[in-house]
Amino acid sequence: MDEVVLEVGRKAKQASFVLAKLSTLEKNAFLNCLADVLWERKEEVIEENKKDVQDAEAKGMKRSLVDRLALSEKRIADMAEGLREVAALPDPVGEVIEGTKRPNGLIISKVRVPLGVCAIIYEARPNVTIDSIGLCIKAGNAVILRGSSSALRSNRALVKIARDALKTRGLPEDAVSLLQSGKHEEVNALLKMREYVDVVIPRGGAELINTVVQNASVPVIETGVGNCHVYVDCSADLEQAVRIVVNAKTQRPSVCNACETLLVHEGIAESFLPLAAQALWEKGVELRGCPQTRAILGEKVQEATEEDWLTEYLDLILAVRVVKGVEEAIAHINRYGTKHSEAIVTSDYAAAKKFVEEVDAASVYVNASTRFTDGGQFGMGAEIGISTQKLHARGPMGLRELTTYKFVVLGSGQIRE
Amino acid sequence: MDEVVLEVGRKAKQASFVLAKLSTLEKNAFLNCLADVLWERKEEVIEENKKDVQDAEAKGMKRSLVDRLALSEKRIADMAEGLREVAALPDPVGEVIEGTKRPNGLIISKVRVPLGVCAIIYEARPNVTIDSIGLCIKAGNAVILRGSSSALRSNRALVKIARDALKTRGLPEDAVSLLQSGKHEEVNALLKMREYVDVVIPRGGAELINTVVQNASVPVIETGVGNCHVYVDCSADLEQAVRIVVNAKTQRPSVCNACETLLVHEGIAESFLPLAAQALWEKGVELRGCPQTRAILGEKVQEATEEDWLTEYLDLILAVRVVKGVEEAIAHINRYGTKHSEAIVTSDYAAAKKFVEEVDAASVYVNASTRFTDGGQFGMGAEIGISTQKLHARGPMGLRELTTYKFVVLGSGQIRE
Repeated sequence: MDEVVLEVGRKAKQASFVLAKLSTLEKNAFLNCLADVLWERKEEVIEENKKDVQDAEAKGMKRSLVDRLALSEKRIADMAEGLREVAALPDPVGEVIEGTKRPNGLIISKVRVPLGVCAIIYEARPNVTIDSIGLCIKAGNAVILRGSSSALRSNRALVKIARDALKTRGLPEDAVSLLQSGKHEEVNALLKMREYVDVVIPRGGAELINTVVQNASVPVIETGVGNCHVYVDCSADLEQAVRIVVNAKTQRPSVCNACETLLVHEGIAESFLPLAAQALWEKGVELRGCPQTRAILGEKVQEATEEDWLTEYLDLILAVRVVKGVEEAIAHINRYGTKHSEAIVTSDYAAAKKFVEEVDAASVYVNASTRFTDGGQFGMGAEIGISTQKLHARGPMGLRELTTYKFVVLGSGQIRE
Repeated sequence: MDEVVLEVGRKAKQASFVLAKLSTLEKNAFLNCLADVLWERKEEVIEENKKDVQDAEAKGMKRSLVDRLALSEKRIADMAEGLREVAALPDPVGEVIEGTKRPNGLIISKVRVPLGVCAIIYEARPNVTIDSIGLCIKAGNAVILRGSSSALRSNRALVKIARDALKTRGLPEDAVSLLQSGKHEEVNALLKMREYVDVVIPRGGAELINTVVQNASVPVIETGVGNCHVYVDCSADLEQAVRIVVNAKTQRPSVCNACETLLVHEGIAESFLPLAAQALWEKGVELRGCPQTRAILGEKVQEATEEDWLTEYLDLILAVRVVKGVEEAIAHINRYGTKHSEAIVTSDYAAAKKFVEEVDAASVYVNASTRFTDGGQFGMGAEIGISTQKLHARGPMGLRELTTYKFVVLGSGQIRE
């Protein structure tokens, strides 16, 4: 086991015991302090970030990825503002979730407590650094960060500022650590460090998530892969259906809650598909369809393959399939979906009820865009990610999902007979 | 990937969609039916079990393990009764956990749903077979069982009865499956089958749990390893403390919530240790102590090594250490404990508060025996195990802990701006 990583883990665990005891006021004061210091020292961050950006460009990084990597004054202001927003959220720690007095007089409370040490593994987006620090610390957790090596200088600058702010507030610096070697062994060591790490959350694309899931013995929360569907039922209001499909596909195509496949009831395919196609083509969307879709829309629509039903395009491409009805739509979704966000557009009560009951996904929608699956939109405040697994948390994960609970049992000498 | 196991997984997943839709009445009817059929066909089970027991004895299995393996009419009656008790518990599925109406009119409910497919890996205790079937099906899950090869014939007979009962009630037989090859590859395949298995729960000793944790890419709930402590503070009622320590150590020494190390405040060590030792020796407990303990209790107490602080004896052995106070007791527990059940005996409010806040464990007790950490004792009804990890469920896991949730979002054409 990598000694450096082990030492980071050991110190983070020690720090986590201090964090777990902090009052809400102390945590909020730190977050606001960090927001202030981040803004004061923005030049320092931007300077280091420029070097990362130059290197990335020299290495031929894609434009869209360089855009995510680059920090401006505006982005730093947004990061600071994000910290202040997290400070303003209610503190989940200490909540008594439920409780009871047992017949033998034992008083049992289930009390919300921090997870302990959270490890976050992510890609070249330095805003995730500050974002993760804010959420983890507010929930009383120490955090170990492992960003992309292409953002290393930016992350170093940000973590230095965070550790300085911790020191200023009299808190243990090891509450925030950054793994810096850039080596793969470092990640592997982190993923095996069960003694010190309570959960690892990968934030990024399918490949990153898969690597983590396959190699971790530490518990993982899988996030973010969304092969989402909109199913337009034969009873749908067609104009509403077009609006929802266009929104779900094009409002922000690069994110996990965007729609990737459109399913259409055969009873309305001939009337609906031309309307939808026109609106989607106007937005520059490429369609790939099943034979029935192509029979209606013509050669402009490329043929969809099995691969298309499985693909999260994250781009202006939409697979289209005509189905016999809600039953077949549900079967398609449960077979090809990633259990993220799924929508039906319908005016039929029974179809809506069947869809929400039988589709196996974190979020199921009736007559609304899949784009709403988001901590902010769901009223949780900032989110650390969207879980697509069923254990622990499902769907958007806010502060509460970064906690666990303990049973506190108060007795007066009870023994078990 | 093992084709047989893959096929079992595929069918279990299909069955899980049917189970998820069942009403409480249908599930209860199945459980009561299974209880009846199990009792009617007890000879069949006992006959197969006899062969397992004979083989185990021929192979020199330890007496205590053979006892766990052997089924009698009484044990089968208990298993049937257990099924009826689970049938009588409230159904967790369908509960609306919380909900809200958002400013844009979206109505969001967080609804409790089954996990899907649960895999249970366990040792040579055939009662776990029926127990797991009862709990998983009541929570709406399909279950894949993998017991010890030394209980294979018993498990085959039990699972055959369960599948027959499913058929009788018009339910898919693949709701219950047993892996039967006895090969290690089978377990490895199960642990990697992310597409079909939603959670794997190992029920057994530290070695089994470790194997599962190290090899699974399917999400795991770790259960059951308990290196539990009782700390006797200087303000403790000494007689109460003796009763609690004796109960926690000896009432059932082979289980995970039994006490393995006694920590004693130095201020009362001289008065308390002789009292405790006498009571424990009367029960046949062997003590292993730190130098201070041995200075007080003498040579009869073997010297405790670092290994002793780490050991879950599951036997009539108790490690004993004198500590400076609650602070040192907490540090010892957080270092050597397995986050299961930890108790303080004290009359001091501040010490009690500090202990429950700072000890990192699923259950923390004031003035009560650690032996109460149990689904039944906590008022949850039957339990599938006691989680010692922080993700998903912590402490005793009943029916509710065998579920997850989905967000159901009802709209009227909302799109995201």
